[in-house]
Amino acid sequence: MEIRPADAEDWPRIWPVLRETVQAGETYALDPAMSAEQGRALWMTEAPRATVVAVSERALLGTATMGPNRPGPGAHVGTASFLVSADARGHGVGRALATYVLDWHRRHLFRGIQFNAVVETNTAAVALWTSLGFTVVGTVPEAFRHPLHGYVGLHVMYLPLT
Amino acid sequence: MEIRPADAEDWPRIWPVLRETVQAGETYALDPAMSAEQGRALWMTEAPRATVVAVSERALLGTATMGPNRPGPGAHVGTASFLVSADARGHGVGRALATYVLDWHRRHLFRGIQFNAVVETNTAAVALWTSLGFTVVGTVPEAFRHPLHGYVGLHVMYLPLT
Repeated sequence: MEIRPADAEDWPRIWPVLRETVQAGETYALDPAMSAEQGRALWMTEAPRATVVAVSERALLGTATMGPNRPGPGAHVGTASFLVSADARGHGVGRALATYVLDWHRRHLFRGIQFNAVVETNTAAVALWTSLGFTVVGTVPEAFRHPLHGYVGLHVMYLPLT
Repeated sequence: MEIRPADAEDWPRIWPVLRETVQAGETYALDPAMSAEQGRALWMTEAPRATVVAVSERALLGTATMGPNRPGPGAHVGTASFLVSADARGHGVGRALATYVLDWHRRHLFRGIQFNAVVETNTAAVALWTSLGFTVVGTVPEAFRHPLHGYVGLHVMYLPLT
């Protein structure tokens, strides 16, 4: 597995994973009817943000975006989003991307990383972030409407880097 | 004081208040170098969001925007932002706008209102939201760089409406 910056040629392989994820509606508070154009604007970022892909041979295993969580007086805290291809789940792709993202934030001298909306039933994600040192700062009750579980909480998670 | 939907003719009076607020850098994690065009895109919203002004005679006392906090599975929780003109502070404008915003959310059947980033040193705002029933769900430590106080926390605040 190699993790490298995404380029325009990666987008046709990223979009089906993003589309499947938003249509499933289990892990991201994003519009399930998102168009490819909206998806590209969301995921294919430019500096000071970055987008990477995890690839093996020519297969897309996963992808992540990262950058400042807020502008101006909030720009010293970063954030990130992750997607792992359905076929590649359970093989450490998420952890490899997360490790890259932590290194990226340290290299760019961010003071911390904040996840704004981790769905509390996404236990794989919560366990991964917790194992990397993130803590749940708070949980907004019933802020996410899950297709199976109904209204569930959204965790705000944070990792200090200083 | 009258609170009514904002129209295009209100923008020239809103922009100086927004610009002064972002340049002061004490209450919003927004780009202090924001252009008028960026400000207008941020503040002059369209459905399903709404923007209102508090006016007295022809003077702008304050303004608020409101709408879904997140798309898709998060769209049942709302959020809002507020500005009060420097000359009008301490006269209940913020509370009047907040009352309008709460009514608006109830009318549109939102299940709650979330503030994502209340600067913890903005004690007037924290006290106002608390008096209206909001609680601090969590505080992201040092997530805001205040020009006087240095790194201070950002509160996530929430009010259930169901």
